[in-house]
Amino acid sequence: MSRLEVPSHQVGGHKALNGKLGPLIDDSGRFYKPLQSGDRGSVEVSFYETFSSDTRVPDHIRRFFSKFYGTQPIEASDGSGLQPHLILENVIANYSNPSIMDTKIGSRTWYPQAPDAYIEKCLKKDRTSSSVPLGFRICGLQIYTGHDLGYWKPDKNVTQNYTADEVRLVLRKFVSSNESTELNNDLDTAYASSVYGGDSGILAQLKELKSWFEDQMTYHFYSCSILIVYDKKSLLKDEASGPAIKLVDFAHVVDGGGVIDHNFLGGLCSFINFISEIVAHPNECTAKASLQTKNGEAKMDHN
Amino acid sequence: MSRLEVPSHQVGGHKALNGKLGPLIDDSGRFYKPLQSGDRGSVEVSFYETFSSDTRVPDHIRRFFSKFYGTQPIEASDGSGLQPHLILENVIANYSNPSIMDTKIGSRTWYPQAPDAYIEKCLKKDRTSSSVPLGFRICGLQIYTGHDLGYWKPDKNVTQNYTADEVRLVLRKFVSSNESTELNNDLDTAYASSVYGGDSGILAQLKELKSWFEDQMTYHFYSCSILIVYDKKSLLKDEASGPAIKLVDFAHVVDGGGVIDHNFLGGLCSFINFISEIVAHPNECTAKASLQTKNGEAKMDHN
Repeated sequence: MSRLEVPSHQVGGHKALNGKLGPLIDDSGRFYKPLQSGDRGSVEVSFYETFSSDTRVPDHIRRFFSKFYGTQPIEASDGSGLQPHLILENVIANYSNPSIMDTKIGSRTWYPQAPDAYIEKCLKKDRTSSSVPLGFRICGLQIYTGHDLGYWKPDKNVTQNYTADEVRLVLRKFVSSNESTELNNDLDTAYASSVYGGDSGILAQLKELKSWFEDQMTYHFYSCSILIVYDKKSLLKDEASGPAIKLVDFAHVVDGGGVIDHNFLGGLCSFINFISEIVAHPNECTAKASLQTKNGEAKMDHN
Repeated sequence: MSRLEVPSHQVGGHKALNGKLGPLIDDSGRFYKPLQSGDRGSVEVSFYETFSSDTRVPDHIRRFFSKFYGTQPIEASDGSGLQPHLILENVIANYSNPSIMDTKIGSRTWYPQAPDAYIEKCLKKDRTSSSVPLGFRICGLQIYTGHDLGYWKPDKNVTQNYTADEVRLVLRKFVSSNESTELNNDLDTAYASSVYGGDSGILAQLKELKSWFEDQMTYHFYSCSILIVYDKKSLLKDEASGPAIKLVDFAHVVDGGGVIDHNFLGGLCSFINFISEIVAHPNECTAKASLQTKNGEAKMDHN
């Protein structure tokens, strides 16, 4: 195994910074995720094991999930010694300057069998974030703004509380060339058609995923995210690493019990609707609300 | 106005029996629904007024809603004198022996802005019924079983708690010619293709409704039901009053705020999935669970 490092482009989840426990990467395209405590770690391992050997999952759906290479004890990032890690594909290894959005799908992040205290905690978060009103919440975001400015990384506490109109704006900003750090109407959506649109763009991928969710009754994905990743520079060079979606975070996957995952599917349809609007009207800002952020200012990172 | 009567084929909601307040019908095909107390009555009136003049709603969707003829004070069924009533189309007027299913759609029956106590009450019901696991619950049901036996009307407290496999069975029983009052595997699904299937059957109608819900961002329908109605005898005679779906109960419709109704849509997709299975495999019972009802025995009505 090559030397492990802290990933520089992680937008959601626990981070392996300042001696904390978090995921690591190597230079061969693998991502090492420490098993979460309690049931979460074992649920996620169990999901990857079941899913990776589930022959009913077609290849055009499987590509939306990270490849799984088993589990292995490795030196943890918090110095606590050898700890079990999931070994996964590093889904952003091939992007030099990735713009990334991590969106937790579903208006409900709790599973039906969960303990009352857990449900209460999740419900409160779902009600106070955009999950209940919109069917999803943006949990992590970085937008490459160009060489000098680096990345715009608004805080999770801001993005997950976005209103519908703020989501419209940030989804436009995600595919704009503007360097401004403001979330405003002055966005060119220069990359809308090449990122969201087209036969193999984000919208087409999301619709493929939706078709699968209309049928599959095996897995219910609670508190699971869709990553959207692309690279502005690669787009210009027409490189192989095009815009892609990946499902991540399976610590709360439960058996579908012969029912489709209507919670994930409903949230996914809502998310698709927001992206569709931009593909259909790239030059027309449909936002109606005030443009001031309600929950504090977005943070700006330079690297 | 012709003489008003208590409807004989009402499966859900408050009933105008034994001096209680409930809806009435006349012999010209109209349905008189007393305004509910508190905000509910005014919310429902306001929905019908807005919706009936909303020119964005296409005709092929409008047919899934009862026609609205305004409100009017009429003698209430509980003897309390003149009370305001909604005047609606009696959607089952043209069916002599209607089989009816009333399914409340959505895993969540509470709207985001509701008071905490109301949310708590709804959430408890959603969690203990099939709403959370399946995305819908069957709130009323009558199946015409033939001349002698009349109608099979299982109790609401049974139907709304059905498991996935019990829903599979009851949806098969709904389109079977068997006179048995048991919810068991011995069902012939004789009417599956003519009720659920075909270009204008229930499945096709539900899919049309689904397409609309993937786009419309004006109305969010909480605690709203889809009625499915058909008449076994009419089917045999190939009469005009074919299988139909109707949306009913709009006391908790709220403004969509520029977002699709992902809660209704998710539940609708789940319901569609159950019906699709039967259309695809009418002769194959896919139920896997035990066939005993968990929540008491179904009641049998003879009329």
